[in-house]
Amino acid sequence: MPALNPVELIVQKRDGGRHTPAQIAELIRAFLAGKVADYQLSAWLMACFFRGLDREETVALTESMQRSGTTLRLAGVRQPKVDKHSTGGVGDKISLCVAPLVAACGVAVPMIAGRGLGHTGGTLDKLEAIPGYRVELDARQFERVLRRVGVSIIGQSAELAPADRRLYALRDVTGTVDCVPLIVASILSKKLAAGLDALVLDVKVGRGAFMKDLASAKALARMLVDVGTSAGLRMVALLTDMHAPIGRTIGNALETREAIEVLRGGGPPDTRDLTLALGTEMLLLAGRRSAKAARAELEAALESGRALERFRRMVAAHGGDPRVADDDSVLPRARVRRPVLAAESGVVAAIDALELGLCAVALGAGRTRADQAVDPGAGIELEAVVGQVVQRGQPLAVLHAANAERAQAALARVAGAFTVRRRAPAAKRLVIERIRGF
Amino acid sequence: MPALNPVELIVQKRDGGRHTPAQIAELIRAFLAGKVADYQLSAWLMACFFRGLDREETVALTESMQRSGTTLRLAGVRQPKVDKHSTGGVGDKISLCVAPLVAACGVAVPMIAGRGLGHTGGTLDKLEAIPGYRVELDARQFERVLRRVGVSIIGQSAELAPADRRLYALRDVTGTVDCVPLIVASILSKKLAAGLDALVLDVKVGRGAFMKDLASAKALARMLVDVGTSAGLRMVALLTDMHAPIGRTIGNALETREAIEVLRGGGPPDTRDLTLALGTEMLLLAGRRSAKAARAELEAALESGRALERFRRMVAAHGGDPRVADDDSVLPRARVRRPVLAAESGVVAAIDALELGLCAVALGAGRTRADQAVDPGAGIELEAVVGQVVQRGQPLAVLHAANAERAQAALARVAGAFTVRRRAPAAKRLVIERIRGF
Repeated sequence: MPALNPVELIVQKRDGGRHTPAQIAELIRAFLAGKVADYQLSAWLMACFFRGLDREETVALTESMQRSGTTLRLAGVRQPKVDKHSTGGVGDKISLCVAPLVAACGVAVPMIAGRGLGHTGGTLDKLEAIPGYRVELDARQFERVLRRVGVSIIGQSAELAPADRRLYALRDVTGTVDCVPLIVASILSKKLAAGLDALVLDVKVGRGAFMKDLASAKALARMLVDVGTSAGLRMVALLTDMHAPIGRTIGNALETREAIEVLRGGGPPDTRDLTLALGTEMLLLAGRRSAKAARAELEAALESGRALERFRRMVAAHGGDPRVADDDSVLPRARVRRPVLAAESGVVAAIDALELGLCAVALGAGRTRADQAVDPGAGIELEAVVGQVVQRGQPLAVLHAANAERAQAALARVAGAFTVRRRAPAAKRLVIERIRGF
Repeated sequence: MPALNPVELIVQKRDGGRHTPAQIAELIRAFLAGKVADYQLSAWLMACFFRGLDREETVALTESMQRSGTTLRLAGVRQPKVDKHSTGGVGDKISLCVAPLVAACGVAVPMIAGRGLGHTGGTLDKLEAIPGYRVELDARQFERVLRRVGVSIIGQSAELAPADRRLYALRDVTGTVDCVPLIVASILSKKLAAGLDALVLDVKVGRGAFMKDLASAKALARMLVDVGTSAGLRMVALLTDMHAPIGRTIGNALETREAIEVLRGGGPPDTRDLTLALGTEMLLLAGRRSAKAARAELEAALESGRALERFRRMVAAHGGDPRVADDDSVLPRARVRRPVLAAESGVVAAIDALELGLCAVALGAGRTRADQAVDPGAGIELEAVVGQVVQRGQPLAVLHAANAERAQAALARVAGAFTVRRRAPAAKRLVIERIRGF
């Protein structure tokens, strides 16, 4: 291959041209080798923001990023390996529910999860609310837990897709995060490096999601599914509603508690429904013949306690306290609890997920910079959900905080996130659309 | 002023927003102070490529770049200070003619010139063909020559608009050179730092120019004039034809010789005409009432020998051999001369300036990288110009080169740059349009 001229590549993309897969592979290789400077890659990223990358280019970028590190083989894991990934929401604890549930049905779930940033929460932070749970396993430990328990949820290790970390760090400081093909390559490169057979995507749409409108969420889902399928993954995406928070809790220990309720066969209806909907897709990608049979299998695993047992074993395998499955008091609690009362009677017509996500961060449950610590006990518990009748003076939510000042500061804003009307709102579908691979 | 968030500024421009002058000033300041990284500025530059900068933003950028270094005051120079700047062409030796000519009419010409790069030549390289001529004077020496002689042509010093050098170096390696507002700010920041009162622009359009079509040349000229005027310069731009080379020579010593012919009152008609057209504009900006009177004044300065005398004194003041004004043999000559013969009889319908510019570089007259040395004697002498009748076997051009191999290698390509037809082409206007400040 002739020596890469990075300026030519930048100008080609700037002027609306298409790169060959070899050009993209060489660009990423040269960038990691220090032969293409940060300032050249950032100019290229900005050109990509304006000109886009087509499917073939995005597949090449994804695979180049995947190959920048090791790809897990997980040779000792015999079952089909299926993961679920969400584009991020508020109160989204589905990973904690669905991963052990699907594992209880005989499918391996090697899940590499992330941390919360901005208004959205992160699965790793929720797991770390469990005393002792270690999210950092090396590849051998990860495989051993998967072989023994069938499910393991860990953080991204330095060996998997290091190009993604380099690129993301650059995008974060150059205004090039909001670019669909770059988002797609970032998500899928890590998933491919984890050695998956199949992946179910939960693409969230609405106020509390990264994609605010249906058209852009659909475009992202379509590209994720197309690129992932081209790269050899079996894929399905569900577009799901993210206007109101999921379930009744926002905050790490609070959400872990709710996830355990679902694994016990209970929990809020929407959290349970979304768990079953995504779990059904995971089982279908693992080879189950019908959605109806898959759903029945999942419901049986919940009712029988096998899902909860799988969760208990996963926590223990990660060094966490397994009593958490049976006893909520193992989880950390915030010192201060403060109710937010309804100022008027009526029906809850809307709850602004974005606002509540930001309030949870302000209470200490999240972070505004990647290097901040979180308060595991902090967060918001909803006492009223959309469609529910409330009387004036009745609690809409309970704030959990480390001290009274923090709770006090969030009070008015949390109250303002609730819209109370005379009439009940039209019911919203949780799953808006299903997008399959070609 | 609150601390600058470079990512917010990048995203603002990326999304089509406008910056305030204060934001732009702070961005440039922070970049020079190392508080905004190269990779952030390059992303911003690429966003500017797509979204543009409006007049107010470009004025702010220009002034920020100007203020990054010292601005010459030239307090000892009493006359109006007027410069001429060309966007770059092939065979363009007008600066060498017009600067001493206008100085001979009592206008100070403090000219900061550049070097050749790619297919276009540079005034400094042409002056350095004169034995002893020093283009590097410090600010005090520059002012002294201006005070005594009325004209001085020097290279850009490190103190003038250092931000421009930093920015240009970054643009050069990030595919962000071809962006009108960035070009405008680069040109004008240096001119403003030189302490001018007025500036005449020669914006070239055609094959041999940076701008290939009239519309883009006009847009560049319009923005240059508008931004310069806003920044306090009196300005006029001429759009001039750059399909064929100017005059009969391409190459440093060859062009200096032709410039001296013009200063003696001779020279090729187009070189003389362009000199008079641009000189007229300079005198008008210096306060002359009519173009007709200005032109007569210039012609008189040529005929009387005062323009040549001014050139002689400028050369001497710069350490150059003043005999060059009277004796061409002072200039270096290439060892090898090789004619290019017409393959058929007819009329020269076109001469491709871009091709001849590139051939001159190949002969040693120019450079493809900024750090290369040039061969002062190398170049191309035209024996036939557009509209001229030629017979088969008659010379179209003479190549000047250091050795026979170089001449031989350029032979076919130079011949190919001439289009010979049966019929004479339609005459082209040299000055296409005149653009004034508001």
